[in-house]
Amino acid sequence: MTYCIGIKVNDGLVFAADTRTSAGVDDVRTYNKLHSFVFPGERVFVLMSAGNLATTQAVITAIKRDLQAEAEPSLRTPPTVYEVAEYIGALSQRAQKQVAAGETKGTTGIETTFILGGQVHGEEPQLYLIYPLGNCISVSPETPFLQIGEHKYGKPILDRIIRPQTSLEDAARCALVSLDSTMRSNLSVGPPLDLAIVPADSFDISHRMRLDLDTPFYQALKESWARKLEAVFAELPRFDWESGKERGSGHPDEGNVLRLR
Amino acid sequence: MTYCIGIKVNDGLVFAADTRTSAGVDDVRTYNKLHSFVFPGERVFVLMSAGNLATTQAVITAIKRDLQAEAEPSLRTPPTVYEVAEYIGALSQRAQKQVAAGETKGTTGIETTFILGGQVHGEEPQLYLIYPLGNCISVSPETPFLQIGEHKYGKPILDRIIRPQTSLEDAARCALVSLDSTMRSNLSVGPPLDLAIVPADSFDISHRMRLDLDTPFYQALKESWARKLEAVFAELPRFDWESGKERGSGHPDEGNVLRLR
Repeated sequence: MTYCIGIKVNDGLVFAADTRTSAGVDDVRTYNKLHSFVFPGERVFVLMSAGNLATTQAVITAIKRDLQAEAEPSLRTPPTVYEVAEYIGALSQRAQKQVAAGETKGTTGIETTFILGGQVHGEEPQLYLIYPLGNCISVSPETPFLQIGEHKYGKPILDRIIRPQTSLEDAARCALVSLDSTMRSNLSVGPPLDLAIVPADSFDISHRMRLDLDTPFYQALKESWARKLEAVFAELPRFDWESGKERGSGHPDEGNVLRLR
Repeated sequence: MTYCIGIKVNDGLVFAADTRTSAGVDDVRTYNKLHSFVFPGERVFVLMSAGNLATTQAVITAIKRDLQAEAEPSLRTPPTVYEVAEYIGALSQRAQKQVAAGETKGTTGIETTFILGGQVHGEEPQLYLIYPLGNCISVSPETPFLQIGEHKYGKPILDRIIRPQTSLEDAARCALVSLDSTMRSNLSVGPPLDLAIVPADSFDISHRMRLDLDTPFYQALKESWARKLEAVFAELPRFDWESGKERGSGHPDEGNVLRLR
């Protein structure tokens, strides 16, 4: 499995991904799932993937080949990120169909889902989720983040923190906390973590880093979060029978208790 | 969907459940999923369910009928909670088989998963998850809680907080926070919430309550958690470029950025 997060805030885009791939628990590897393409000052794209690794690599390889061959379309020419999303969707469909033709049992999952974010000169930054069918959806102010892979564990903290006005650094910290919570609760998501920040109108990646369990910053973040969360927990309101105060802990619901002799 | 949590700490057992059932988004209802049976001073059981509502109700009805008929086995006689779990597993299997016999399309999910906790005189408190197959697993000191239904959103906070030495009230607060996070992130889990606390060796339920969104205690808990979480967030370590200090934010990973002309 995998867990990748793309966040769009007013100040730009944040991308974070784990690096664990697994074809069964006895075949676990580390792969970069965060791919970045920069045309300095003109256009910038970050692509993350969850799903079949061969399909992913076929798409990444095709993207690079098209760039080298100065093919049309490629990442270089479309005037909008949406058209780049369509282009990648088409590459993904092509890669899947090629493999599906040779599939006899119909049991191998060959699908890949992508998150594509970036900015092309003349447009605002954009963030899309590209489905295995090749179609895509965008973020919106009400839904400023997209997740692929093992997304449930880390969603509550994103729901609570991420708003369009959140800073890039807070969004990056939130993505790392969301990944950290997921790694604690699910073995299929694992370190090291990749992080990329794309400030609006920079047409570049301002920070691209890899964080491992022993990276001092990540260690400090993890420990600070865990310790402070426990402290917050200790400060939560008491039930009435603890505090001696009647604060309406709830409606006593003895009617639902079956008392038997 | 559903979300129920059972927690076993040294001081006893905590149970919490939502009340939303849905057969599609256009058929949403409110049902009690937390059933309690008290034989004061002798034995106490709490049963929570996730899955097919008809199977659940068939099991609950059979339990009550067996109690009334003074049948053997019933909740009244087995000397251990494990045997009660086996008894309920058998009732669940019977209810499913009865329905499966009439199933023609094979598409309706008739399975139900249960959490059963309680204490019988002469034993420690016990907590089991009963699978649709009728077999069951217990908690352990390393895994002091069990979840059924939509369990992923609310797992990280349980993983972080719940230990065998956690107090009953802290365990109850943690269960409510876990439910609150799940309800924020997933519409299929909804209020009101049911909570039951079974102190060890009380052979009774000390607190059984229903909390709705406007219950003062639950409102205070929810708001306190949300506000303090945001405050904690604001105190997390800064990246080196924010603080001006080099604290090793991560390994700059420019090698993974493809720069194009």
